[in-house]
Amino acid sequence: MKRRDALGALTVLGALPALAALGGCASTPAVGTGDLGLVIQRARGAVSIVDTTQRRALGEVAGLGDLSHAAAVFGRDGLHAYVFGRDGGLTQVNLVERRIVARVMQAGNSIGGAISADGTLVAAQNYTPGGVKVFDARTLALVADLPAASRVVGLVDLPGRRFAYSLFDRDAICIADLSDPGRPQVTTLEGIGRQPYDGLVTPDGRHYIAGLFGEDGLALVDTWAERPQARRILAGYGRGEAPLPVYKMPHLRGWAVAGRHAYLPAIGRHEVLVVDTASWEEVGRIAVAGQPVFVIARPDGRQVWVNFAVPDYNRVQVIDTPSRQVVQTLSPGKAVLHMEFTPRGEAVWISARDDNRVRVVDTQRFATLADLPVDAPSGIFFTSRAHRTGF
Amino acid sequence: MKRRDALGALTVLGALPALAALGGCASTPAVGTGDLGLVIQRARGAVSIVDTTQRRALGEVAGLGDLSHAAAVFGRDGLHAYVFGRDGGLTQVNLVERRIVARVMQAGNSIGGAISADGTLVAAQNYTPGGVKVFDARTLALVADLPAASRVVGLVDLPGRRFAYSLFDRDAICIADLSDPGRPQVTTLEGIGRQPYDGLVTPDGRHYIAGLFGEDGLALVDTWAERPQARRILAGYGRGEAPLPVYKMPHLRGWAVAGRHAYLPAIGRHEVLVVDTASWEEVGRIAVAGQPVFVIARPDGRQVWVNFAVPDYNRVQVIDTPSRQVVQTLSPGKAVLHMEFTPRGEAVWISARDDNRVRVVDTQRFATLADLPVDAPSGIFFTSRAHRTGF
Repeated sequence: MKRRDALGALTVLGALPALAALGGCASTPAVGTGDLGLVIQRARGAVSIVDTTQRRALGEVAGLGDLSHAAAVFGRDGLHAYVFGRDGGLTQVNLVERRIVARVMQAGNSIGGAISADGTLVAAQNYTPGGVKVFDARTLALVADLPAASRVVGLVDLPGRRFAYSLFDRDAICIADLSDPGRPQVTTLEGIGRQPYDGLVTPDGRHYIAGLFGEDGLALVDTWAERPQARRILAGYGRGEAPLPVYKMPHLRGWAVAGRHAYLPAIGRHEVLVVDTASWEEVGRIAVAGQPVFVIARPDGRQVWVNFAVPDYNRVQVIDTPSRQVVQTLSPGKAVLHMEFTPRGEAVWISARDDNRVRVVDTQRFATLADLPVDAPSGIFFTSRAHRTGF
Repeated sequence: MKRRDALGALTVLGALPALAALGGCASTPAVGTGDLGLVIQRARGAVSIVDTTQRRALGEVAGLGDLSHAAAVFGRDGLHAYVFGRDGGLTQVNLVERRIVARVMQAGNSIGGAISADGTLVAAQNYTPGGVKVFDARTLALVADLPAASRVVGLVDLPGRRFAYSLFDRDAICIADLSDPGRPQVTTLEGIGRQPYDGLVTPDGRHYIAGLFGEDGLALVDTWAERPQARRILAGYGRGEAPLPVYKMPHLRGWAVAGRHAYLPAIGRHEVLVVDTASWEEVGRIAVAGQPVFVIARPDGRQVWVNFAVPDYNRVQVIDTPSRQVVQTLSPGKAVLHMEFTPRGEAVWISARDDNRVRVVDTQRFATLADLPVDAPSGIFFTSRAHRTGF
C-alpha cells in the first residue's frame, strides 16, 4: 500500500495512528512478538529467528559461542531472548532487530538457566566453577553470586522472584529467594539422594523434582510447604533390576503433566511411565518405540509426544492420554533432538539435526505443514515460554 | 542514544541489525508485545493500551462504539486485539501503532467472542439477531454465518479450530467445527437445561460448562468424548432454597480452576464453592464478604481472588487455596469491575470504575505497585491470553 493510500484508509477509519505509521518508517510496520521463537543451530553458534504464524525463518543471529547444549528463556516483553551457551556465554538477543544486545562470559562451563517470574532477573547454573550467577535482565550486570561448591543442575524459576536448583556434588536442593537481590536468601535441603542430575518444576510452580544419577528414585519438594522438605518418590524409577544400557539420560525438563497425571521417560527402557500427581505413585506404563528422551504434553494435555535416544532417534510417537495408546508414529527426519508446541498446541515444531531441517506438523491430522532449512537444529524455544513457569 | 553512538555499539557487538535500526527509524526501536494489554473505558468507547512491565498506560484508541459490556481477544502475534462491543461492533486494534485496523458492525446487539486456537478465525456471539458470525482474523471478512434462532451466550474456543456456545432460547449447547470454514459442522446438544446464560471451558479446553438461568444446576459437556453429551452437575447450584436477592449474575468465565479444584461464585450467597473437577461435586464452601462476581485463580493456583456485587463492590478478597482461608481483604477503589493477573501472576490489575483508576497490586505482599488513571475502567485484557484456551 502506498503511503497516500495508507493515510486515506486511516482517515476513513477515524484512527489515531502512532508516529511509526505517519513518520518516515512506513517500510517497517510494527510487528508482534507473540508468535516468534528461536531455533538453536548447535554447530554454528547461531540461532534462527522463526515466525510460527508464517511458519518460516525470518533470519539468524550469529556469534553466540558454543551452543552444543544450549537453552533459552525470554523476557516478559517477548522481544528479548537470553541464550545460555555450553561455554558459559550468556547472550541477550533482540528477536525483531535480530541482533545481539549484550553478551557476557559468565562461567567456564554452563548448562542452562531461568528467568524470574517478574522478568527482572536472569539466573545461570554453572559447572565450572559451580554455583549460580544472577543478572539484571535489562543490562546483564551481575546482581547476585550464589556459590555452591558443586556443579549446579536443574535450575528453574519459582513464583515470586525465587529459583530452585540441585547440587550434583552435594546431594542437595536449594531454594533461593531474591526478593531483595542484594541479599539473597538460600535455603539448602541436604541429603536429598545421591547425585541429582536434573530437575523440573510442575507447571503450577509448586512441586520441584530432581532426578538422581547415583541411585534409583527421585526427590520431591513441595515448595508451598511452610518448611519445604525433600521426600523420595518412585523408588523404582531409575535403572532398576536387569537394566538395559542407557544411551542418553532423559531430560527431566521434558516431563509432561497433563491433567492429573505426569508422563515421564523410563530410564533405559522402552516405556513411558504414568504417575498420579497426588500420590506421586506410578499408575501405568506405555510401551514406546525406543528409550524416550523428551516426553512432552500438547498444551491441552490430550496428547503426549515422545522422541527417542539412539538408535531410534528418527522417530516420534504420539500417545493419546485418555486411552494411553500410541496413536501415531512419525518419521520427521534424522536425529530428532527436540520438539516445541505452538502456544495453543495446534502444531508442533520438530528439529531433525542430521537432516538440517525443522519440520512443522499439524497435531490433529499429523500432516506436514512446513519444512524449514536450519543448520543442525537442536532446541526450539517460542516466546510464549515467557508467560509460563518452569520454561 | 544518538544514532552514531548506536551504530558504534552495534559494530562492537558484531551484531546484524535489522533495517529498523539502521534506517531512518532510530526513534522507533522495536518493541515487544508480550507485556501489552488493554483496558476498556466503558463510558467513552475507547481502550487504554497498557504496558505491564512499566505499569503505565501508553496511550489510547477511541472510536470503538458502545463498550458498556465489552470483551477482547488477541491475535497470536500479540499485536492485534479484537474488541467486541455491546452494539455489535467488532474492532481490530493494532496495539503498538495504537490505531484501528478494521472495524465491522456485525450484529445489532452482541456480547463477546473468541478466537480460534490457530488465530485465523474470530467468532462473535450475538443477541440480535441470534447466532454466531465468524470472521477472517486478518481482514474481518465474514467467512461463516452460523444462525441459531436464539440468543447466543458462553462462546469459547476449543482446540482445533472449534468453538462451543450455548443457545439461551433453545436450551442447547453447540460445538462448531470450522476446520473447513466454508463448510462448518455444527453439533447441537438439545435439552441441556433451561436457559443457559453463560459458559466457560476449563483451561485444558476439555470441559464446557453452561450456567442455567431457568433452573438450578449446570450443564457439563466432556468435549473429548467420541459423542459429546451434556450431563447435569451441581444440582444445588443456583438460587436454591431460601434465596437471597441476586444483585448480579456472576460471570461464569471468571471460574477459577486451580489444581484439582474449581472455585466458583455461589449465586446470591456470600460464598465461594469448591468443586472437585474429577467428580464435579461440591467439596467445600468458603465464606466471603459479599456476593461474588469474578472468582479468579492466580496463574499458579495458590491464590484465588474474588470481587463482589453491589453493595460490596469496593472490596476484593484473597483466598489461600491449600487452607481455603481468606487471607487478605483489600479496598482497591470504588466499583471494582474486573481483575487481570500478569501472565506469571506476580501482580494483579484491578479496575475501579467509579474512581477512574486501575490499581496494580503485588500478589505476594499486597502492596500497591501503581495506580493508573483510566476513565471508567471495566475489563482488563493482557496479550498473554492469546496463548491460552478459553480466554
